[in-house]
Amino acid sequence: MAIAEKMTDFIEKSSWIRKMFEEGARLKAIHGNDKVFDLSLGNPDLEPPEEFKRQLRQIAENRDQGLHAYMPNTGYPHTRKAVAGFLSREQNADISENEIIMTCGAAGGLNIILKAILNPGEEVITPAPYFVEYGFYADNHGGRLVPVPAGADFTMDIKAMDAAITEKTRAVLINSPNNPTGQVYSEQNLKELADCLEAKSREFGRCIYLISDEPYRKIVYDGIRVPSVFSCYKDSVLATSYSKDLSVPGERIGFVAVNPAASDKKFLIEAMALANRILGFVNAPALMQRVVTELQGVHVDISEYDRKRRLLCEGLKDCGYSFTRPSGAFYLFPQAPVKDDVEFVRALQEELILAVPGSGFGAPGYFRLTYCVPDSTITGAMPGFERAMAKFR
Amino acid sequence: MAIAEKMTDFIEKSSWIRKMFEEGARLKAIHGNDKVFDLSLGNPDLEPPEEFKRQLRQIAENRDQGLHAYMPNTGYPHTRKAVAGFLSREQNADISENEIIMTCGAAGGLNIILKAILNPGEEVITPAPYFVEYGFYADNHGGRLVPVPAGADFTMDIKAMDAAITEKTRAVLINSPNNPTGQVYSEQNLKELADCLEAKSREFGRCIYLISDEPYRKIVYDGIRVPSVFSCYKDSVLATSYSKDLSVPGERIGFVAVNPAASDKKFLIEAMALANRILGFVNAPALMQRVVTELQGVHVDISEYDRKRRLLCEGLKDCGYSFTRPSGAFYLFPQAPVKDDVEFVRALQEELILAVPGSGFGAPGYFRLTYCVPDSTITGAMPGFERAMAKFR
Repeated sequence: MAIAEKMTDFIEKSSWIRKMFEEGARLKAIHGNDKVFDLSLGNPDLEPPEEFKRQLRQIAENRDQGLHAYMPNTGYPHTRKAVAGFLSREQNADISENEIIMTCGAAGGLNIILKAILNPGEEVITPAPYFVEYGFYADNHGGRLVPVPAGADFTMDIKAMDAAITEKTRAVLINSPNNPTGQVYSEQNLKELADCLEAKSREFGRCIYLISDEPYRKIVYDGIRVPSVFSCYKDSVLATSYSKDLSVPGERIGFVAVNPAASDKKFLIEAMALANRILGFVNAPALMQRVVTELQGVHVDISEYDRKRRLLCEGLKDCGYSFTRPSGAFYLFPQAPVKDDVEFVRALQEELILAVPGSGFGAPGYFRLTYCVPDSTITGAMPGFERAMAKFR
Repeated sequence: MAIAEKMTDFIEKSSWIRKMFEEGARLKAIHGNDKVFDLSLGNPDLEPPEEFKRQLRQIAENRDQGLHAYMPNTGYPHTRKAVAGFLSREQNADISENEIIMTCGAAGGLNIILKAILNPGEEVITPAPYFVEYGFYADNHGGRLVPVPAGADFTMDIKAMDAAITEKTRAVLINSPNNPTGQVYSEQNLKELADCLEAKSREFGRCIYLISDEPYRKIVYDGIRVPSVFSCYKDSVLATSYSKDLSVPGERIGFVAVNPAASDKKFLIEAMALANRILGFVNAPALMQRVVTELQGVHVDISEYDRKRRLLCEGLKDCGYSFTRPSGAFYLFPQAPVKDDVEFVRALQEELILAVPGSGFGAPGYFRLTYCVPDSTITGAMPGFERAMAKFR
């Protein structure tokens, strides 16, 4: 074979999900884009805020020299300073620009964290359901992802996580608000996790990192606030992006922040800066660093997503679906009315509704819907959801 | 240790070169930026062409929807089409958009190629001196870089490369115009390599890839043209960027192209698209994809670099330095007048001249200078070069 065996294996294993997407594309080609209700993709449908467009125009008109040149691998000092200032308030911690590394999105950020900390065969624990890319990210750097099933309403099952932690555990990776469930971990839940990690770190004589992937932090509802991970646990690292806040996922801009109280902080930051360079990111895109410098705290209109969330939740409830109401992000993760989630997603396809089987997130028996779509896609899909439910009831 | 052992090792091993850079920064702090002649960095000093600025402004003013959204991992189809069209003429091959993947610079491109093809322990052969990052890139994906010393005037020593190729060899990685030597491999030299790779591929029963890293292709002098790798060898893949052509290295935009005649082309492209996603690049920055779509074939004024090249070459020749005159890029790789290149680079620092020891490129006894700097930096450094030479002669 002309390609790496591992990649062949990855491609084969993901072929079932690719086939689902191909079926979706086939349906769109036959019936037309507007006749197919695509609730399968996490591509935000809101446009970037007006401030983003204004910043972009300003930078485009700027005649200063060296605007597109190399800068330190960690990013522009003035960008990191702006990020640190805002984040200090958000995380209730005194964060300096030296604890910030600008990255190519949260995906780039998670990869430099894992590259910096993983030795071969070490494990990263994550509550399931989880974002499917985590498995690849751990594997990229010689590690292994260990999913631990979540408890009721997708809260972390600390007892189960405690049992899963061994001497091989290097980090716990959490995602709150969560993709695919939309759940936000409570401060209580986080503190229990922190207690567990502290005890285990002591037991094994080295720190277990808590990595918090927070790209949906600003997309929350019902007055909820996402608790500060930095306040709960010392050896914590945060990865996030502006992809969802600003609706610019194609631009690949985000950052990593290290808890100012973390052990061996200096080494960790140096290793991540090196990882940013040698993994080929080199630095986060210069222009977008300049744009986000001036947009700290700016985000799309969350009430738009809230309206869509209500539309979807109320519609599905009326059809008889069971689900935990999401507190953040723009995903809903209902139970399939039949054990086989792939079978159910196929039944939805017959109704021209596109969804992703829960198996793709390590949680068979569920399916993921996104509501970052036009309202008409949500309302238009409802008769199909009703018929699909009727088939299995 | 809180970070991966391998990263600790990398950081320790590169500490000597970091110390050299720190010494440079110290000298600048003491004497002032304008008094230190920094010839150590490959950061282009020319501003992007006016067309680049114009395109950027146009896109910033564009009110279309979805300009910053996700797109396929391989990049925008219309961007890939524009790239394929220009590249077809440049490489004298019939390349389609399906053979192009837009990447986060050439560094991102090389990483997705190596991720796609390397099995654990497999080897990548490269002529030395070589760009120091290659060793990391191979290692990132479980491979190992095998440098093979170049022949006279830094041409490829095909006999030595032939001897280095084993069953473990997965690819040969070349860089022409070369960093650090500025040499361009002749068509004859490339054809000899192709013959060798064809014979070895037959012998071992699987293709050995030729990876061509070409970010300096458009920066050539004396009427030289960089020969087409695609015309010479079937199983070839090209990685490049707009960083040097357009003087935008901070923006991280480039692409990978697969020879339309390559074996198992479909698998290779699919594996690279997957690698782009799972390594955390996801896609090349959206905005810069749009910008370069309209800038195919546009580049900075090469005559500027040519003038600087002549200034540096003539100056150093007059001081008695020996070197192979570069045909491309913006580097010069002279012999140190003493065996220990680090010692000589220190002697240059005493003259407030910053250079990089050849040891950093797998070629002790040499040192690298860059001439992508103001003319005054080059001319101002000459008395120092003369005194440093006098010390060792």
